[in-house]
Amino acid sequence: MKIILVGASGTIGKKVYERLATRHEVIKASAHQGNIIVDITNRASIERMYKAVPNVDAVVCAAGGAHFGPFDNMTEDDFYIGIRDKMMGQINLVMVGKDYINDRGSFTLITGILAEDPIRMGLGLSMVNGAVNAFVKATAIELKRNLRINVVCPGLVEDAVEKYARYFPGHNPVSMERVVKGYIRSIEGANTGQVIKIY
Amino acid sequence: MKIILVGASGTIGKKVYERLATRHEVIKASAHQGNIIVDITNRASIERMYKAVPNVDAVVCAAGGAHFGPFDNMTEDDFYIGIRDKMMGQINLVMVGKDYINDRGSFTLITGILAEDPIRMGLGLSMVNGAVNAFVKATAIELKRNLRINVVCPGLVEDAVEKYARYFPGHNPVSMERVVKGYIRSIEGANTGQVIKIY
Repeated sequence: MKIILVGASGTIGKKVYERLATRHEVIKASAHQGNIIVDITNRASIERMYKAVPNVDAVVCAAGGAHFGPFDNMTEDDFYIGIRDKMMGQINLVMVGKDYINDRGSFTLITGILAEDPIRMGLGLSMVNGAVNAFVKATAIELKRNLRINVVCPGLVEDAVEKYARYFPGHNPVSMERVVKGYIRSIEGANTGQVIKIY
Repeated sequence: MKIILVGASGTIGKKVYERLATRHEVIKASAHQGNIIVDITNRASIERMYKAVPNVDAVVCAAGGAHFGPFDNMTEDDFYIGIRDKMMGQINLVMVGKDYINDRGSFTLITGILAEDPIRMGLGLSMVNGAVNAFVKATAIELKRNLRINVVCPGLVEDAVEKYARYFPGHNPVSMERVVKGYIRSIEGANTGQVIKIY
């Protein structure tokens, strides 16, 4: 398969790349490095990416940020950080990509455990995760040409433990291997409309 | 209790008003009629509402729109209709309201079955419902002063069957009585962070 991997240089993206590259042609897309530069908060940038890398069989995302901080200090603009990035960024990857991707192609997005199991200061992420999970279920029944869409929804991943464990008291870190397998299940499997929970 | 009911003139709001008014002081808020006019897509309008109706014990929402239509024709702006209205409109009701509402007050928002059980053309609603459900769970653990927050998440309600049943093939209409009880459970009960599914 020919695959675009958005967020290829991130904590999760790196591990997904390593596995996918053993058996697929993988184009690394990131905000600042890789085979192609893409800013998912900018729809025109997404359009340019698909024009530069045509005829892909899978679009895979391991990117997307949101505001992290206590509700008391959050402004409306803080909510819109995640709305424009992890939420509409991923939705635009699908909305634009559906016209470029090959028949029977797949989209694999990313959310996370905070959609249903919140932590302090994580509500900006919880909100966008919940939105994208629901978007994936709803879009799966609308896609044409046998296109598929799923979302990998991991818990705290082991490679992020050092940086984030203090915000996730009592959470069981998830092995990178399990997360990578979640992506493989979506990309190489046949399901659609699934929230692939890895926790 | 002194209660602000946003969307008091809608299909669900009317029934919630009838019940609440039997034992509470209910201020009806709507976009075009009622005791006070509020546009939930406009944060300044929400601020004005809370200043005009101070010291409430419960903020109850039965309002919020989103784009309805096939994914193929949806534009980015179409997604933002729901983001600004049912999603950030309700989030702003909480974000602004938390500084005005009485100690031990409650917020009761509204979403719907499409968050997890999509229908054709409903993805704009699915997305915002998923976002608000996750927001409620995440915000419940951040609210101070024993404030509470829940969301009523109904299926197709019986009073909307004539208008919408054709979009919900095979769905069991939910009685208005059950929906009203969902609101009562949130407003008069003690739970917080709950998605009160009525279907």
